[in-house]
Amino acid sequence: MQRRSFLKRGVVGAAAAGAASIAAPAVVRSDDSFKWKLTTAFPPGVPFYSTGPGSLADLTQWIKTISGGRLDIQHFHAGELVPAFEGFDAASSGTLEVNAWVSYFGAGKIPAAQFFGAVPFGMSFQGQNAWFYHGGGIELWHEVYEPYDLVAFPCGNTGVQMTGWFKKEINSLEDLKGLRLRIPGLAGKGYAKLGVDVKLLPGGEIFPALERGVIDAAEWVGPAQDKRLGLNKAAKYYYTTGWHEPTTVTEFAINKQAWQALPPDLKQTVVTSCAAANMVAHTWSEANNAQAFEEFINEGTEARVLPDDVVGGLKTAMDGVYEELASNDPTFKKVMESYLSFKKTHDKWARMSEGVWHAKLRNPA
Amino acid sequence: MQRRSFLKRGVVGAAAAGAASIAAPAVVRSDDSFKWKLTTAFPPGVPFYSTGPGSLADLTQWIKTISGGRLDIQHFHAGELVPAFEGFDAASSGTLEVNAWVSYFGAGKIPAAQFFGAVPFGMSFQGQNAWFYHGGGIELWHEVYEPYDLVAFPCGNTGVQMTGWFKKEINSLEDLKGLRLRIPGLAGKGYAKLGVDVKLLPGGEIFPALERGVIDAAEWVGPAQDKRLGLNKAAKYYYTTGWHEPTTVTEFAINKQAWQALPPDLKQTVVTSCAAANMVAHTWSEANNAQAFEEFINEGTEARVLPDDVVGGLKTAMDGVYEELASNDPTFKKVMESYLSFKKTHDKWARMSEGVWHAKLRNPA
Repeated sequence: MQRRSFLKRGVVGAAAAGAASIAAPAVVRSDDSFKWKLTTAFPPGVPFYSTGPGSLADLTQWIKTISGGRLDIQHFHAGELVPAFEGFDAASSGTLEVNAWVSYFGAGKIPAAQFFGAVPFGMSFQGQNAWFYHGGGIELWHEVYEPYDLVAFPCGNTGVQMTGWFKKEINSLEDLKGLRLRIPGLAGKGYAKLGVDVKLLPGGEIFPALERGVIDAAEWVGPAQDKRLGLNKAAKYYYTTGWHEPTTVTEFAINKQAWQALPPDLKQTVVTSCAAANMVAHTWSEANNAQAFEEFINEGTEARVLPDDVVGGLKTAMDGVYEELASNDPTFKKVMESYLSFKKTHDKWARMSEGVWHAKLRNPA
Repeated sequence: MQRRSFLKRGVVGAAAAGAASIAAPAVVRSDDSFKWKLTTAFPPGVPFYSTGPGSLADLTQWIKTISGGRLDIQHFHAGELVPAFEGFDAASSGTLEVNAWVSYFGAGKIPAAQFFGAVPFGMSFQGQNAWFYHGGGIELWHEVYEPYDLVAFPCGNTGVQMTGWFKKEINSLEDLKGLRLRIPGLAGKGYAKLGVDVKLLPGGEIFPALERGVIDAAEWVGPAQDKRLGLNKAAKYYYTTGWHEPTTVTEFAINKQAWQALPPDLKQTVVTSCAAANMVAHTWSEANNAQAFEEFINEGTEARVLPDDVVGGLKTAMDGVYEELASNDPTFKKVMESYLSFKKTHDKWARMSEGVWHAKLRNPA
């Protein structure tokens, strides 16, 4: 962290006092100035994450504009300063001030981080964020990241992610056996329990692997991002349920010493801007997923819903995964209990509100 | 608008230049200061609107903190400066700087304002906001309010509202005939076409009227707000579908001259803070509706979904209402066409994403 203190309010106050006809400001504000570095797990040019409305480019620009340049966050993409998945440690140690990624990238080291990223069979956008802002979720996030000297906020959300692209239809649990599926993270453990041959491939390798039949299926994000990879040209069937990532959060994690050095106006600027980016990025995703999905269908993609017995099998498999993790890790258990308790109450309301809207009011097709 | 210009950057710049060892700020920012008045259609003490997380109290405090007091918006409740429904004209004429209400309160004068407030049989939270931020919705809002010298942004959202409290079950369209139902606005016109005896009562009169049987049913907001009025003590059946208000937006409308006088940092502060309030207020509503709904059920409320033929009848009635309005008002028609075109594409995505989440992943009860 570079901290440049070049104009304290005291100096300005003295200047103002010298001009007798000028009123004193109502609220005293520090004029300290801060230059931060943000690293991310995302390459340049990716809408939603790296560029465009609600992205990290937008968020850092809002903060700069709002603060009149007093909090100037330089935005680096994956690999420009540190490799994609090393930003967390870099922000934690204070090598730089902020890391942005999805919390589940760190779930190998911090299993509970899964709940701040995407929760298989968890809540969707409204529930996840209600838990964050009003159900103790952000407080738990801070508690879990306390040993890593990081303070994190949600700053974006993809919404429901797609199950992915499949070269053949999935009609039963049998069809999963031996299926070579690209999918990372916790959800991969659930698939593996059902006999799926789970493959880990970075984004850039998915299209050629799927097209050439090195893999049979691939999960990525959702229509807007999948279109950028051209996945609709490599497989015909586009499956949904979003069981693996019913809503996926972008994390903005700030080194604690850098955070604590900010005066109240800049802290509020960061908190407010992250909440605004969460709204703007998520709705970008909704608007652009809708557009891309319509284009896929017009171009011949076959949309499918995973059969109920497959979803049921995955649920049972994931229940086992959660149980294992909770029994080995009290922090995971604590966060899971908060999340599930909130979910239980919120699900009942979601059933009466958005659930009925989807069942009765939305156009059926 | 009071505009207090007491410390221009020129003054500070001169002081800084005098101290040769101090670097110049990277971005020049005006130190103009502004004192605004906000009036609202809401009484004091109402969570979501007047007080608590994401409310107008929170929003104005964020803006004050972020701007170091340079944009200080004094928050007045309904009737404190002007009556509840006269704030729009007051902000329009420049008597004060901001009015907050729900746009449909002005739909008598500006029918197209309905689309910025709540749209019977329209989109729910994610679609409405995707249209606002990425489908041209906010731009259309500004266009519609141009003749009124107002610039408006969404700053809160109740989510799906409940159909309301009924003393008797509704099993068919027949049961609507002669039913004395409290409901304001466009939705009331739809009910009236089906023989409902539509009543207009202010919030404070709903409970006694419903309890004493002066009315048979009443629409208000949703569980968290309905609980404050004690409506569960006055009627047994709590109906849903939210057809009349599938998502209801809080409007933050700024006098255009006041808006244009703001420097870029304060404009960005307002835009970003409104988007953040939209997120925080909506999720407050989700969290607290969930809690209150669970309490209602535990205390004996019977939750019901409007029967399909009733929803179908209301849809047909509302189609007629929309057609009439569109044929009489080219602005209404223009906004409706933008809204429905966006909705058509978004509904297909919603069906594949959140719709499947609700049907297959959420706990069934």
